[in-house]
Amino acid sequence: MFEKVALIGVTGAVGRIMLRLLEEREFPAKSYKFLASARSAGKTLTFNGGQHTIEELTHDCFDGCDLVIASTPDDIAAEYLPSAVKAGATVIDESGYWRMDPAVALVIPEVNPQAALDATGIIASPNCSTTQMVVALKALHDASPIRRVIVSTYQAVSGAGTQGSLDLVAGSKAHLEGDDYAYQAFAHPIAFNAIPQIGSEKSDGYTSEELKMVYETRKILGDESIQINPTCVRIPVANCHSESITVETERPISPTEARELFAKFPGIVVNDDLATGQYPLPSNCTDQDEVFVGRIRRDISHENGLSFWCVSDNLRKGAATNAIQIAELIAAHRFSKAGTK
Amino acid sequence: MFEKVALIGVTGAVGRIMLRLLEEREFPAKSYKFLASARSAGKTLTFNGGQHTIEELTHDCFDGCDLVIASTPDDIAAEYLPSAVKAGATVIDESGYWRMDPAVALVIPEVNPQAALDATGIIASPNCSTTQMVVALKALHDASPIRRVIVSTYQAVSGAGTQGSLDLVAGSKAHLEGDDYAYQAFAHPIAFNAIPQIGSEKSDGYTSEELKMVYETRKILGDESIQINPTCVRIPVANCHSESITVETERPISPTEARELFAKFPGIVVNDDLATGQYPLPSNCTDQDEVFVGRIRRDISHENGLSFWCVSDNLRKGAATNAIQIAELIAAHRFSKAGTK
Repeated sequence: MFEKVALIGVTGAVGRIMLRLLEEREFPAKSYKFLASARSAGKTLTFNGGQHTIEELTHDCFDGCDLVIASTPDDIAAEYLPSAVKAGATVIDESGYWRMDPAVALVIPEVNPQAALDATGIIASPNCSTTQMVVALKALHDASPIRRVIVSTYQAVSGAGTQGSLDLVAGSKAHLEGDDYAYQAFAHPIAFNAIPQIGSEKSDGYTSEELKMVYETRKILGDESIQINPTCVRIPVANCHSESITVETERPISPTEARELFAKFPGIVVNDDLATGQYPLPSNCTDQDEVFVGRIRRDISHENGLSFWCVSDNLRKGAATNAIQIAELIAAHRFSKAGTK
Repeated sequence: MFEKVALIGVTGAVGRIMLRLLEEREFPAKSYKFLASARSAGKTLTFNGGQHTIEELTHDCFDGCDLVIASTPDDIAAEYLPSAVKAGATVIDESGYWRMDPAVALVIPEVNPQAALDATGIIASPNCSTTQMVVALKALHDASPIRRVIVSTYQAVSGAGTQGSLDLVAGSKAHLEGDDYAYQAFAHPIAFNAIPQIGSEKSDGYTSEELKMVYETRKILGDESIQINPTCVRIPVANCHSESITVETERPISPTEARELFAKFPGIVVNDDLATGQYPLPSNCTDQDEVFVGRIRRDISHENGLSFWCVSDNLRKGAATNAIQIAELIAAHRFSKAGTK
């Protein structure tokens, strides 16, 4: 059991879910410390039936903490997490800042658990759109190496934080009433629209969100040869990212084999019967911790191709759940080992 | 100038736009006949400033008509259009029924105009999701033959007819107020959701909408070797379909060359500057007749690949506009020829 767990970013969209998950899963910790920006410090929150005061995140607030889980913007993670490592804590970070650092482990417990167990510094949790895709890819990759991935995403506004969610509701209401609305989280109206840009422009005409799907996937699967072409699109869905994924594998994987590989892979739920209209939808995957897969079919344009539809709760498996699963993995390893000494 | 034009399906979502377009474009016709089902017969409509009575569609209502433009469900097109052909009319059909008939021309005026001019029977207008994609593909195909297409669509509810549009508004309002709503045009809630099924299940795990994109594209481009992998998804957008398209061409086409090819192709508007957030959106393409292209970039997963984002008004270029452009093409050819006799 962890002695003292520091949670950073408890007032954010992911942070609030993190608290709920730790309660539900009876996370093995003796005590907690709740950290946020100076703006939220002093406020109280309810956790495990008690009232707790939120403390301000500072460089010297990690004394005695053996685990830190952080859900913050990149710049906060950049500034404060090295102090947590120095204080001796195991640090799990949900931001994008540390993921591609060669000294940092980038981990999905179902995919590359050993990387978390071997880590000596920060352990990063991947970007939401990457995580659900890589869980599904790994199930196939173990059967036949993946050569190429073409993915188009249908991403929910909750990925743009609390303001993204507020914008969708307020913007939709205004639109239905014929009123204007000034969006804060989006550069274009998201209500009843589709915006083919998430993140900022990077190289080659791709966005930061798209290149995360390329580089994080290669790092997690430990295979720099996988070719990936992503298109990331924001759509007016409150929560859960959907992805249309086409893969080419070294040898053909039939839909029947793929269905079996997905079904037996930890953390994947197959929901696949087109004849009766069964496939994952954002509306039925929200508040779930798994990655849902359907529309599994032969890629009729390539003999080694396979296509499928993949949905997951981007705040859960795409963020909070994955971070907590990393912590649980470490706990199981560390404390069971200690127990057998 | 056409002597007498019969318009079938004038009360539907596409039919109403057809009337507006004929007015706006000063379509060359001396007189019109407005046809619909028995349910709508006897009602009146306003066209070119006058009031007109809608007549019932029957097998012998085409006497004296030299042009028929039909926007109806497949079964109506199947039953009545042969009678229009027998009566000697040029028949342009927007339904899906006749498109793949070998005796029928399937036409996009910017792509294969000669097929319309050579036609002796029905001339079909392609499915909305096909049309906008093929306009864009043709611009590339002329420079280097297209080998493979992978497309994921983001389709608007207006493609599901008037009831689809009503469902989105009513379902969204109900959802925002926490109420239930019984959807009529969709098997799942479309408000704030993404449904990866349009049309019915066909072969190989693909839907009817998806296979239309395969077979219609090959027929229009006259190239049965093009490999196409479509995923068709309905999203909560009122109007305009968006498509994430990746193509492989025989030789590589650079983004710079592609931008030039698109820009000079008739009917395409390039809107492409990621740095300043410029790309086509459903919200700014509605009520436009063109096909809009942006996010033009190298496919970083394939040396002969190119990716782009394509948006068009599915009721206009995807249906009404294309049908009327076919009629205008025939008029220009027939009546200018007559004039030079």
